[in-house]
Amino acid sequence: MKKLINDPKNVVPESVEGFASAHADIVRASTDPIFIVRSDAPSGKVGIVSGGGSGHEPLHGGFVGFGMLDAAVPGAVFTSPTPDPIVAATAAVDGGRGVLHIVKNYTGDVLNFETAADLAAVDGIEVRSVVVNDDVAVQDSLYTAGRRGVAGTVLVEKIAGASAQRGDSLDDVAAVAEKVIAQVRSMGVALTPCVVPHAGEPSFALEDDEMEIGIGIHGEPGREKIKLQPADAIVDRLLGPIIDDIPFASGDKVLLLVNGMGGTPQIELYIIYRRAAQVLAERGIEVTRSLVGNFTTSLEMQGMSLSVLKLDDELTELWDAPVQTAALRWGR
Amino acid sequence: MKKLINDPKNVVPESVEGFASAHADIVRASTDPIFIVRSDAPSGKVGIVSGGGSGHEPLHGGFVGFGMLDAAVPGAVFTSPTPDPIVAATAAVDGGRGVLHIVKNYTGDVLNFETAADLAAVDGIEVRSVVVNDDVAVQDSLYTAGRRGVAGTVLVEKIAGASAQRGDSLDDVAAVAEKVIAQVRSMGVALTPCVVPHAGEPSFALEDDEMEIGIGIHGEPGREKIKLQPADAIVDRLLGPIIDDIPFASGDKVLLLVNGMGGTPQIELYIIYRRAAQVLAERGIEVTRSLVGNFTTSLEMQGMSLSVLKLDDELTELWDAPVQTAALRWGR
Repeated sequence: MKKLINDPKNVVPESVEGFASAHADIVRASTDPIFIVRSDAPSGKVGIVSGGGSGHEPLHGGFVGFGMLDAAVPGAVFTSPTPDPIVAATAAVDGGRGVLHIVKNYTGDVLNFETAADLAAVDGIEVRSVVVNDDVAVQDSLYTAGRRGVAGTVLVEKIAGASAQRGDSLDDVAAVAEKVIAQVRSMGVALTPCVVPHAGEPSFALEDDEMEIGIGIHGEPGREKIKLQPADAIVDRLLGPIIDDIPFASGDKVLLLVNGMGGTPQIELYIIYRRAAQVLAERGIEVTRSLVGNFTTSLEMQGMSLSVLKLDDELTELWDAPVQTAALRWGR
Repeated sequence: MKKLINDPKNVVPESVEGFASAHADIVRASTDPIFIVRSDAPSGKVGIVSGGGSGHEPLHGGFVGFGMLDAAVPGAVFTSPTPDPIVAATAAVDGGRGVLHIVKNYTGDVLNFETAADLAAVDGIEVRSVVVNDDVAVQDSLYTAGRRGVAGTVLVEKIAGASAQRGDSLDDVAAVAEKVIAQVRSMGVALTPCVVPHAGEPSFALEDDEMEIGIGIHGEPGREKIKLQPADAIVDRLLGPIIDDIPFASGDKVLLLVNGMGGTPQIELYIIYRRAAQVLAERGIEVTRSLVGNFTTSLEMQGMSLSVLKLDDELTELWDAPVQTAALRWGR
């Protein structure tokens, strides 16, 4: 295992400490229990909390700040946070107008956020939850009943965050989050596995000439292991199921997200973007917004995922709204 | 070789095409010769051009836009661009007040940018050049006489870009670039090599328990190959030579850049940041600005570099000035 870490059991607390130190203008960290929260402590707006296992950075801590999340709760690597820190983060960001939980669809996350929402309710905090399940690769998977939540989560967090930031009610923020979830689809590919620090071994095996189509962000099995192909053929193989799922149709305006899994060079992500934009154009689908980079990662995994979100005027306006976080920043 | 590419010889043109397509609001690409240029074609200001071998993305194309570079010239992977595209990019951004070339100190880059500057002068364009040489690891190296230019280049481009954007003269923009070069020092480490697409083989070898201290951004040899150590010990080993070189002193205010080499997870970069900030604080050096992420990469190499820039009021103001590029964006 080759990693820039100290004791594997300190990976998350040390990384969170470094993150809060580097971005003290935007966030601060609670250390016991561990969560990341906006340093400007906004009030008078709906709070938004997300979280999940670590190892997917910048998801979720990198999206805490003006116009996006109010708090993020990191669990151990690839392990859901327990209810306690979720309750604490929820209480920290409740400004009296309620709190939205944005949860990726993994059994552990769903259960722990549900428990946390019940506990927060006992304390008089109104909580609504949405569950992101954008991955079209498989119906059920290791750790998940139903479809998994993957990189589309970033789009839910940005757009719901903008809705909360402009002062929308909890019902309205939850409704716009559900709208994004209904209109975004994703699928990924891995060329290499990743190594969870406390495990010390690769989470799965791939031959030197092999890739896994439909991989999950924890290395869960996808649709098939096949021989490595040229980038354009891989894009075609991922975009087909994405387009057919909703389905997206000629005349649609979309946001195209090419998400690196952590170990793929940017030069490759733009080769992927090129082909994905071509395929969508051939289908009459217009890419009006785009995002390329490492946003929902799997440690050092080489690979990427594609996400397509159907836009309308409301979603476009919320996407374009100012945001100021460690990992996404514009207009402010 | 596991890469998300098509034909290795098309890696750069296809990636540039995808990049320009994804960021059409900020840049456009010339295809013959290949260069990336601001889409808003600013005039009345000093132009700034940088470039070099591809494989270090987002350097340099990701830094083209308002407040930073006016054009970037990508060569083949790890290979300097020839003079022709540099001349074309220089002519494209000359608004009559002259053009600054920002060049990393590699023999090929220095030679080709010099030739390009001479050719541009024949066409009546006033060109000044600065050469970045921030890497304290070794005095001479493969491809380089003197010290190499590495991640500190990003800081030169941002600060000189802000100087040009506010309307400074060519002399003044060049002077502020030279000031940054005089005050920034860097050093890196690699845990794994990278594979140049047209070579198909790792560029150097490291054992499973080995790392290279003082690595160059093309995998050139550094100071020593040693056994892998905990993150904190690695930081101490890199920061010592950086601090001692200028030297930085107690009371200094600095910008701390933790730069990922491309294949290192963000969770590890923040563990590195945590220790680096601690060491600087112990020395009485105050980190007043920071930057953490993949900015000057070596394809999929696992590793990172640390850069420390001594700030004063002028450099801080120029660092904070609005910027709008694909890879750095704030205040606008």
